This record gives sequence, structure tokens and C-alpha cells, in this order.
Amino acid sequence: MDPTTLLDFSKGGGLVTAIAQDDASSEILMVAHMNEEAFRQTLVRGEVVYWSRSRGRLWHKGEESGNVQKLKGVYVDCDGDVVLLRIEQVGGAACHTGRRSCFFRKLEAGRVEDVGVQVFDPEQVYKR
Amino acid sequence: MDPTTLLDFSKGGGLVTAIAQDDASSEILMVAHMNEEAFRQTLVRGEVVYWSRSRGRLWHKGEESGNVQKLKGVYVDCDGDVVLLRIEQVGGAACHTGRRSCFFRKLEAGRVEDVGVQVFDPEQVYKR
Repeated sequence: MDPTTLLDFSKGGGLVTAIAQDDASSEILMVAHMNEEAFRQTLVRGEVVYWSRSRGRLWHKGEESGNVQKLKGVYVDCDGDVVLLRIEQVGGAACHTGRRSCFFRKLEAGRVEDVGVQVFDPEQVYKR
Repeated sequence: MDPTTLLDFSKGGGLVTAIAQDDASSEILMVAHMNEEAFRQTLVRGEVVYWSRSRGRLWHKGEESGNVQKLKGVYVDCDGDVVLLRIEQVGGAACHTGRRSCFFRKLEAGRVEDVGVQVFDPEQVYKR
């Protein structure tokens, strides 16, 4: 079976939504996108490859920082436009801000609270 | 603070992605979309309201089946285009197929396996 046939890339203009969930804690770490090639490469490599909309190219997550996402499980939703990736996040942080998860802004009683766990200093890791 | 200012609706043509995660088990139950009004109504009601792209209208989840999603927590990601909803799923099933989660198709070694937990018979619930 060609696994890309499970996905419907047409609704999202060639992209599906991809959710990275920590395989150990079930914490949602980040959400990004995949085109068909990114999905194929992810399955072949066993490490997550997204499609970067801002850069307009394939994005092997961790290619700069070394903090790759090791693939532990892949699930597809009922209508085929979302992929759920169960992963192990090397380095412990998925967010470009250096926090463990991108979902560090909690809304509570009309206020926003930063509940993020800072793992690394992005200025140290992304040396450009 | 107006909580809608945390979100960037412009990137998704007026919509953000919304992930519903079970507040007790951390299982990801479904992914849908919200426009600004859906997000506002969700916060006010304390029950999840999406924007249905197929129906072109607000969709108070559970309005037909009674299986509403009670809001337990709201998180916004680093770039403001995804909302994470921690919820309690009344009735135990979020998927229109009657399964607990929409992510019931597991990809493993080139094969797809249905790992879904069937909670209700959709033909009994959606009487049209």
C-alpha cells in the first residue's frame, strides 16, 4: 500500500496539517505542515520532515539545531487531512523559542500566562 | 485583554487550526477550525464552537448528538495560528464515525490498522 493515498492533500493546497506529540508524555509539542514528499521522507528516514511554508522548501526538523524528531508512530485522521506523529524530541525542545512545546501560552480568565518550559537558549542554538 | 489578539487569523484565510485533546488522557481527539467568532463563543460558552468549512457556518460541536466538548483549558502556539483545547468529551466519542478519536488509522510497516475505539453507532446518533 502507498501510504500517501491515506492522505488528502487537495483540501490544503497540497499540504496536510502535522501534529507532533511526545510519545512518552502525550504532550503536544508543535503543529506544522507536510506535502506528499515530506510525508514520504518522514516514513523513510524515521525522522520528521515538514514542508516549511515560510521557506518554501522541505524542512528536516533539527537540521540546524540537531534536535531531530524520531518517529515512534503515525496516525491519520478520519478525513485524511491531518497526520498525528508520535515522536521522541531529541534535545527536549520542539519550539524555535527553546521551549519544550510551542503551546506555552495558556489563556486563563482573560489573561495569558507563559507556562512554557525553557530547554535551551535559541540564540545559542541557532547560530546564523 | 482581548484573547482574539493572541491569534493570527490572516494566515489561514480567517481561520486557525483547533486541536481537541482529552483533558484526562491527553489523547488527541480531533482537529478542526475556528474563525474569530467561533473562538469567542467557545470562551464565552465554555463549550467548543468550531467553524465548519463544509457547512460554511458556526458549528457548536455536539449540537446534533448532544456530545458537546466541555472546555477545560486553552493554549495558543508560538505563532498564533493553532489553538489547543483541553476538553472533556461528553459521550466519550469525538469522531463522526462514533469512534473516540478521529485518529483511528495507524500506519505501521506500510499497512494501515484501525485502532479506533467504537463508542456509538453513528446511524443511531445522527438521525436525519
